Amino acid sequence: MAKYPKIPEATIRRLSNYLKCLENLENKNEKVASSASLASICNVNAAQVRKDFAYFGEFGIRGMGYNVKELKNNIKEILGINREWRIAVVGIGNMGSALLVYKDFLKQNYRIVAAFDIDPVKVIGNISERMGRPVEILHIDRLKEVVAARKIEIGIITTPPQEAQKVADLLVNANIKGILNFSPAPVRAPDNIKVRNLFFTSALDNLVYYLTN
Amino acid sequence: MAKYPKIPEATIRRLSNYLKCLENLENKNEKVASSASLASICNVNAAQVRKDFAYFGEFGIRGMGYNVKELKNNIKEILGINREWRIAVVGIGNMGSALLVYKDFLKQNYRIVAAFDIDPVKVIGNISERMGRPVEILHIDRLKEVVAARKIEIGIITTPPQEAQKVADLLVNANIKGILNFSPAPVRAPDNIKVRNLFFTSALDNLVYYLTN
Repeated sequence: MAKYPKIPEATIRRLSNYLKCLENLENKNEKVASSASLASICNVNAAQVRKDFAYFGEFGIRGMGYNVKELKNNIKEILGINREWRIAVVGIGNMGSALLVYKDFLKQNYRIVAAFDIDPVKVIGNISERMGRPVEILHIDRLKEVVAARKIEIGIITTPPQEAQKVADLLVNANIKGILNFSPAPVRAPDNIKVRNLFFTSALDNLVYYLTN
Repeated sequence: MAKYPKIPEATIRRLSNYLKCLENLENKNEKVASSASLASICNVNAAQVRKDFAYFGEFGIRGMGYNVKELKNNIKEILGINREWRIAVVGIGNMGSALLVYKDFLKQNYRIVAAFDIDPVKVIGNISERMGRPVEILHIDRLKEVVAARKIEIGIITTPPQEAQKVADLLVNANIKGILNFSPAPVRAPDNIKVRNLFFTSALDNLVYYLTN
């Protein structure tokens, strides 16, 4: 079913970055961007921008640059975020709470439609206090039922590391399609489920490599 | 000064991932790993593993595989995390609080030695309550002085997006070397300062791309 086979993962990562930059341009009412200006804002080089976009056919008009709005919509379509994605967050400690109010999710069609914890009563007290309004937190026992009822496709894990794999198994059992794991313990799932482990140490490793070399 | 020039950024990213997998193997008392076994654990293919390591010279012994401990130390050296890195976290809301107790930082020689907020008094109350012990949170006005006194090289931004660039400027002014920004607003710094913006939407974009294509 792949419309665009053999795209390097680094290009996919940069598409996200371009999208973010295009949104900034749009907020400033810029209508057109050259690959050079886009490169400068996104902190890559112009040849890289053109090479990345070449994987997906011609976007820009030679000598005219890219139409900001069109390019943004093209990238959204390529990434698959031109429609809503319904998400559950499991584990409502500090990290889970931060995600529940992460402002950019909605902009990108990511809707957190359920939040789960092993102790929703305790959590609700904390959250109301911290966020000024109550957020509906459900007991983890209701995961499978609610994932089906609310047509949830993505599960985000924000539990302590020792619970992460157990929660991943529950998400798989609830027929989730993809998992994004924020806990420092890597989780695994059957091949038909996509998993991304987001380790904060990796972000620092990357920064430190470029500070060192 | 680059010891290993022209290493693709994707390889650098995977080195972090390999490191994580090697630590898991070490915890299970495994002494030796083949590129095939490492590939399977890390969710890449064996040819990719060998290609990545080839950038840095020969690590393994042909037919014998890699010595887990040695390979781990080699990767740490390449990334530059074979020494301590001192870090300040700025903005102690939910996200900042989550980082203050993120268990894997210390394993990787990342030491958070200072935390700042615009309202440390309010924050300290919250944190003590949530974490069971007080964490020293300093007023942002003390940033420059404390960065110098505690030899801090990396600043992590966990403020609301509208404060992020202001904090980045303060960190630059305090002679920090690298910035990791967790807020959804991209921050910029002069060329001699390394900046990484970690957008949670990008992690979801990446997952969704592979769910869609």
